Amino acid sequence: MSKAGIPKGTRDFGPVEMGRRNYIFDQIKEVFRLHGFSQIETPAMERTDVLLGKYGEEGDRLIFKIMPRGRKLNQLKTELEKDQTAEVAANKTAEEALRYDLTVPFARFVVQHQNDISFPFKRYQIQPVWRADKPQKGRYREFYQCDVDCIGSDSLLNEIELINIMQEVYERLNLPDVTIKLNNRKILAGIAEAIGEKDNMMEITIALDKLDKMPVEKVNEELKNRGISEEAIEKLQPIMNLSGSNEQKMDTIADVLADSEIGQKGVEEMTFMLGQADAMGYKNIDFEVTLARGLNYYTGAIFEVTHPDFPSSITGGGRYDDLTGVFGAKEKLSGVGISFGADRIYDLMLQKELFPESVENVTDILFVNFGDNEAAQVLKWMKQLREAGIKTELYPDTAKMKKQMKFANDKNVRFVGMVGEDELNKQEITLKNMKTGEQESLTVEAICEKLGK
Amino acid sequence: MSKAGIPKGTRDFGPVEMGRRNYIFDQIKEVFRLHGFSQIETPAMERTDVLLGKYGEEGDRLIFKIMPRGRKLNQLKTELEKDQTAEVAANKTAEEALRYDLTVPFARFVVQHQNDISFPFKRYQIQPVWRADKPQKGRYREFYQCDVDCIGSDSLLNEIELINIMQEVYERLNLPDVTIKLNNRKILAGIAEAIGEKDNMMEITIALDKLDKMPVEKVNEELKNRGISEEAIEKLQPIMNLSGSNEQKMDTIADVLADSEIGQKGVEEMTFMLGQADAMGYKNIDFEVTLARGLNYYTGAIFEVTHPDFPSSITGGGRYDDLTGVFGAKEKLSGVGISFGADRIYDLMLQKELFPESVENVTDILFVNFGDNEAAQVLKWMKQLREAGIKTELYPDTAKMKKQMKFANDKNVRFVGMVGEDELNKQEITLKNMKTGEQESLTVEAICEKLGK
Repeated sequence: MSKAGIPKGTRDFGPVEMGRRNYIFDQIKEVFRLHGFSQIETPAMERTDVLLGKYGEEGDRLIFKIMPRGRKLNQLKTELEKDQTAEVAANKTAEEALRYDLTVPFARFVVQHQNDISFPFKRYQIQPVWRADKPQKGRYREFYQCDVDCIGSDSLLNEIELINIMQEVYERLNLPDVTIKLNNRKILAGIAEAIGEKDNMMEITIALDKLDKMPVEKVNEELKNRGISEEAIEKLQPIMNLSGSNEQKMDTIADVLADSEIGQKGVEEMTFMLGQADAMGYKNIDFEVTLARGLNYYTGAIFEVTHPDFPSSITGGGRYDDLTGVFGAKEKLSGVGISFGADRIYDLMLQKELFPESVENVTDILFVNFGDNEAAQVLKWMKQLREAGIKTELYPDTAKMKKQMKFANDKNVRFVGMVGEDELNKQEITLKNMKTGEQESLTVEAICEKLGK
Repeated sequence: MSKAGIPKGTRDFGPVEMGRRNYIFDQIKEVFRLHGFSQIETPAMERTDVLLGKYGEEGDRLIFKIMPRGRKLNQLKTELEKDQTAEVAANKTAEEALRYDLTVPFARFVVQHQNDISFPFKRYQIQPVWRADKPQKGRYREFYQCDVDCIGSDSLLNEIELINIMQEVYERLNLPDVTIKLNNRKILAGIAEAIGEKDNMMEITIALDKLDKMPVEKVNEELKNRGISEEAIEKLQPIMNLSGSNEQKMDTIADVLADSEIGQKGVEEMTFMLGQADAMGYKNIDFEVTLARGLNYYTGAIFEVTHPDFPSSITGGGRYDDLTGVFGAKEKLSGVGISFGADRIYDLMLQKELFPESVENVTDILFVNFGDNEAAQVLKWMKQLREAGIKTELYPDTAKMKKQMKFANDKNVRFVGMVGEDELNKQEITLKNMKTGEQESLTVEAICEKLGK
């Protein structure tokens, strides 16, 4: 006999969790749609050659590959016998693998369908991804990503649109205390140039990215270890200790970058974005020159959203220059996108008790079952109630009242409906509010009026 | 360089397909919810031992297994070297596999969480499943299933609820011409008993199931080949040629089954269901004694929905006695459920042009980009429009008018908004209806009034 259990690092979602998750996804999707983004979905499995080599060596290892079948399985046997690691043999023969993120499948989608797409292409995609990471608290082997990108336009208005999206999503989710952090990769490049370490932009960026996790001294040490000169590190200090309003910080940076062409371009872009955000009345925008994010394919704006009550970022993204080159796209397609961390938002909202009660209310009215006669009438009334948008069900068995009421309680229904002989005669329903305990006798029409959508 | 392509038998869904698919799923989900069903989701990967042995030998072969990693991969190598088929070795070492349907994961879920569930448990689940079948027209390796089940109650009211659900889903999808076919496994068992072939119920059922695909003579031949006596086949003929109204058919059947206890029970259940459906005013219910459906775990009611313009059934299901026994559940849990064939419904609706136009409308108003000054004003107005539920976007680049209008056309937007110098002065928007070509000048408030939700 099989034992009931699920693979390590995966989760079941029951009714209550699903109610909450759907609430988050519905709010996010609605904001995406209001901005003219449209949804796509790609298969869970991609061709192994599409995924391998896109996420570094570590990524390649963490991609779930599909076991070959039939003749291919025998080929795996042959490969395993050769003088190579088992991993190489497996990667050679596995034809399919589970997607590791939504970015590579999106790039593949754009190239494959480029002749049918009108650019700029604004898409969102909300699907699970799989990573064979060691599971730990908050890290799963299956989790949802929630990506929104505009590809095929260099305009900074796309960046502004994403700021609006972040703002509106977190307003809707009742999380107005978020901070939207902004930076620009061109500013980072300018800094490297200005301190005389032009070729070490990546090294400096990676170190700067750690400033929120370790003290300045440690980061300086790391910079030194990464081969940055003492003189350059010295020049970097005002930037590492930048403070004041966004304007004040921009002024300091603009001075430092006066002689760097790319740096000036970055300052110009950032100034435009901060100005637009200001014009929209947003007060929670933070220019953070230390923001770099791990991914090294960003080329312009960089975004990150944080919340004071949560240890890690809950949204992030940026602009990239050439998403599709790796699949041989006709021309370079620049784009900009962000990704909402649904699991983290879930944890944060749960912790702050921000889910509306209605999210967990599956049923509006549960009717007690008093027998076949009463049930026949109730079934007809239920149809009327559903037509008014009221979620309703009849307890299927003629169990004891106590059992039926316990069920109603456990299921967290809003009202219990009772139709016995009296009610049949009066053609009314006794409606009990499960929260207040109040009872009243109403016609089905009155209930439609009272509770209908 | 990788070539952009997807695995055999899988599909991408672009914006238009997603609009249509979401429409179908949203209607179905809404009906499920109105009946008090709640959603669950299970991981894409199940433990291999949970899936193997549940779908027969053929099923085991078609389950996608996950390639083992690390030490387990070396174990696969060792197993492959042993004197056994490669498949046996693969099944032994693969720890995870992709779900093959939603029924086994649901059974596993119920057993695993039985202490947290209040029964009867009404759940729906809409997720993809994977099968390594040979792909062909209409058959994919990844496709969505859309299941709704009530488990833990023997009451026939659950069957009635499912009939209501089928009825309401197809009303909403504008497919009122469907036929809901009903049968009962107990009637089939009764027939086998009545014709003196009690032990051959499965053989007879499998043959009867083919009556809609082949002529009576062929089925008779098959029955003979399956070892059914000539006498029994003779006795079966009135049932194979049953006609008339549901009542007339039930009368004939009740006569034939007069001496079979299980047959009488089936007649009683069917009479109840037909009576309830009649009381609800449903005209499209068909009692079909030849309906058996392939799956042999049904024990009571059997459902199938067909449409005159579609070759195969678009919904099906039935009652089962013991879903969870295989996972060692404490007690037998009887349930009843149906599954909507979303891909087939999609094809049928497309063929009959039943998708509302709005489904493919991603954007209500696309604003032409006339430059930074105008854009600054438009961005503010767009926020107001979104707050009124209007989907709106600004073309991100100051491209030529012709290019922007072509984009609006390709994206199938409802209106184009124009804000140039004139409009800035008047503080109005020129709104062009893309279908009629009509233009009018309106304030943002007037547009909110006109198009807002």
